Amino acid sequence: MRSKYIVIEGLEGAGKTTARNVVVDTLRAAGISDIEFTREPGGTQLAEKLRSLVLDIKSVGDEAIVDKAEVLIFYAARVQLVETVIKPALADGKWVIGDRHDLSTQAYQGGGRGIDQQMLATLRDAVLGDFRPDLTLYLDVTPEVGLKRARARGELDRIEQESLDFFNRTRARYLELAGQDRSIRTIDATRSLEEVTHAIQETVTGWLREQTA
Amino acid sequence: MRSKYIVIEGLEGAGKTTARNVVVDTLRAAGISDIEFTREPGGTQLAEKLRSLVLDIKSVGDEAIVDKAEVLIFYAARVQLVETVIKPALADGKWVIGDRHDLSTQAYQGGGRGIDQQMLATLRDAVLGDFRPDLTLYLDVTPEVGLKRARARGELDRIEQESLDFFNRTRARYLELAGQDRSIRTIDATRSLEEVTHAIQETVTGWLREQTA
Repeated sequence: MRSKYIVIEGLEGAGKTTARNVVVDTLRAAGISDIEFTREPGGTQLAEKLRSLVLDIKSVGDEAIVDKAEVLIFYAARVQLVETVIKPALADGKWVIGDRHDLSTQAYQGGGRGIDQQMLATLRDAVLGDFRPDLTLYLDVTPEVGLKRARARGELDRIEQESLDFFNRTRARYLELAGQDRSIRTIDATRSLEEVTHAIQETVTGWLREQTA
Repeated sequence: MRSKYIVIEGLEGAGKTTARNVVVDTLRAAGISDIEFTREPGGTQLAEKLRSLVLDIKSVGDEAIVDKAEVLIFYAARVQLVETVIKPALADGKWVIGDRHDLSTQAYQGGGRGIDQQMLATLRDAVLGDFRPDLTLYLDVTPEVGLKRARARGELDRIEQESLDFFNRTRARYLELAGQDRSIRTIDATRSLEEVTHAIQETVTGWLREQTA
């Protein structure tokens, strides 16, 4: 089987790190062990610098970042990661598991922040062409559940401090896009750790079977 | 007269700083003295940080910046500057004189670096909408003349160290775009300081007359 790019998506506190470990175990059980990990925004020296510019507003003093500038910085980081890390790894036969990818921008910026969704799709196509993840696991939680978990973990960054309304809009957009795209599988992540783990294993195993069928 | 946005463009060493001073003097002679200055990439805290990321390759170690990432960083800096500095100044009745704007991206990236020109136009329209300078003065010099002047000024940065072919392609794209757009006026800047100064004065004075006609 050709190597694949699997992305894990969801609100803060949805359980992305746990899900990643379950995906890795499931892949290993299927004999796939040459795996690279990415996270967005970030994952290269340039991209990490761009990430810190956006996420740590203090680094630019009291200047508010214009919505479109934020989106463009995310896309700059993304294309740098795709071209210098993800595509070379896939070409090298490695599987890649990503903590967030383009769907985050469509959901957080297009849904949460209300940036023109057509503009975001235009940007995505202009920048990434037809490059897409082979599989996206969207871990669906309500903002209340997600933020409670995220808060338990420690301090929240700028984007995590947005209002509950923001996260409700983000979640609605995630669900809308997941409903339109067979490569995005929604996992109900409000359930117990055991149940979520089982659902991820089942989803990934079933998807792997489809790939070889 | 509504306040205007005037941009000065050209290769390194074309004489943009001198031209700016001539434009200022010409505007002042016409009774326009409330003028702000911008330079791109840069001009806000965020934009200056983005500028240094792109222009000083050393700041990201040995990682090469992907062409599209560079373009997106320029656009992030540009939209931040347009929305937080240029548009507010114009709305406030101030005139704005810019050292470079979007035409630089179209010429350097689209011409010099050979990035898909349609993609650049798509990006520009998606990011800036129909915001455009009222007048652009393109100072035309051959790369040989420009680089000789730039070298005499001191060290060249990363973009200035590109090959002569790169600058020839950039110049060709500048001339092509200037030929398609009445708001871009080409000034032959290989001539003597006196001649160039006179040409700029004539062009700006004539253009001002058109605005009030």
